[in-house]
This record gives sequence, structure tokens and C-alpha cells, in this order.
Amino acid sequence: MELTQFTDFSLRTLIYVGLKNGELASIREIASSFAISENHLTKVVHGLAKSGHLKTFRGRGGGITLGKAPEEIAIGELVRELENMAVVECLRPDGGACCIAGICKLQHALRRATEAFLAELDHYTLADLITNEVDLKERLRVS
Amino acid sequence: MELTQFTDFSLRTLIYVGLKNGELASIREIASSFAISENHLTKVVHGLAKSGHLKTFRGRGGGITLGKAPEEIAIGELVRELENMAVVECLRPDGGACCIAGICKLQHALRRATEAFLAELDHYTLADLITNEVDLKERLRVS
Repeated sequence: MELTQFTDFSLRTLIYVGLKNGELASIREIASSFAISENHLTKVVHGLAKSGHLKTFRGRGGGITLGKAPEEIAIGELVRELENMAVVECLRPDGGACCIAGICKLQHALRRATEAFLAELDHYTLADLITNEVDLKERLRVS
Repeated sequence: MELTQFTDFSLRTLIYVGLKNGELASIREIASSFAISENHLTKVVHGLAKSGHLKTFRGRGGGITLGKAPEEIAIGELVRELENMAVVECLRPDGGACCIAGICKLQHALRRATEAFLAELDHYTLADLITNEVDLKERLRVS
């Protein structure tokens, strides 16, 4: 059971950009700090800009900043947006093809487990993830 | 975020075999009831036999039965055994390669979320999943 790399990189990107305190970040510096692919990160940043979590400015002097205050970026909500949370096929909107879907108590148990996972993440906003700003900035070499 | 097909099929197999009340099941009938691959199911049954959840008997008159009472098959424990629960790379035993692992509050949040997911499944044993025996047997054509 894993989150997609897309969700993982989206969350890391928001942490990085949040640490910049309004200064512009670049895809290059984020990719370099986390030692991840610039190519993947470009798609991640595009997605987060489309959903309003990031604002991007083109050209010389351009870069990336948060599209909302860190307190307004709810982690549970973001994961719901980014991730397919149907942990088994019968929890998909189309219901899947299992013949016991609807009367299956395992389906119910897995739905409750997924809700518990997300409810835990609902305790956090981006602001909560960057309270140890000094330590994070040092590790990530954020100037 | 999805469970593997292996985990999904393992859980469905145990539900099916549990509904047989001690009579032997065959891979063919389980595969046919759920409309899933016999080939995949063979590996699943092998795995569950190895872990003691199933007992298999070879040859004519052979088949599959539960290796423990349904009340003793704890769903949370089973999912922990079958599934990689490291939802992001920093939660793997090797710690992954992310430079903020260890001081990252997201890592902490995701660990807690995963624990909440499993804690919910800890409320169930196989016995709880087959209490609506009559309805399940009808849908699955269990004789």
C-alpha cells in the first residue's frame, strides 16, 4: 500500500516552497535538494499550480510560490485530491467487478480503515509540517 | 493508494474458504466464484498455506480448508503480513533516500495515518467478515 510518487513529490514540493516564506523557488533547486527528477517535478508543479496550491511566474526572475497560506493547505484534503483512495477495486466509483460488493463486510472494514487514514491526515496543514523550519532549511539547503 | 492484488485475493480466498464451514474448497471453484485468475489464486493459496492460514490436501478428494478458526484470523495482522505498509519510501525499514527523513513531520503524520488504518482493521477477524453467511454463500454460489 503506497502513495504514488506524484503525491509524495507534491507534498515534498509544498514543504520546500513553504519554507521559502514567500521568496520564489525553482524546480531545479527543489529537484536538487531532494535528489529527485526535474522532469517528474515539472509535472508535479504543473498539477499543484492547476489546483491553486502553487502560483508560478514565468521568465527571468520567475519561479514558484504558494498559492495559499500554509495554514490553508489541508493535508488530508490534498491527499484525497491527488490520490486514488480506493484501496481495493470495490471501493472505486464504478464499484469494480467483485460479486459480493455491497454485502461484503471486508469492503466496509477497508472503507473505514481508509477513512481513519485520511482522518489522521486531517489533523495537519502545511503550516504544521514546517514548524521545525530551521532544521528543515538546513537539511534542504534552503537559502 | 491500493492494496496489492495478492492481498485482495488472499482476503477473498479466506472469506470463501471460511464459508465452507470445514468442507474442502478448490482453487477452481474460488477462481470461478470471484471470476479471477486460477493462476494468481494458486500463488495466493500457496502463500496462505505457508503462513498457516490455510491447510491444503493433495490428490483426489483433496482441497483447501482454513488452517485456524475464523476467530483466530485477525485481519489487521494478516494485512501487516501480506502488505508493504510503507506508504512512502522514508517509512521503509531502510529509511529511503529523502534528506529530511527523521525530522520530517509529514513522515510522522503518514506513520500515524498508516497506524490508524491498521488499527481499524484490528477490529475484525475472519469470523466478523462472514457473519452474513447466507447472503455471501448465495452470491458466491458456495454449496
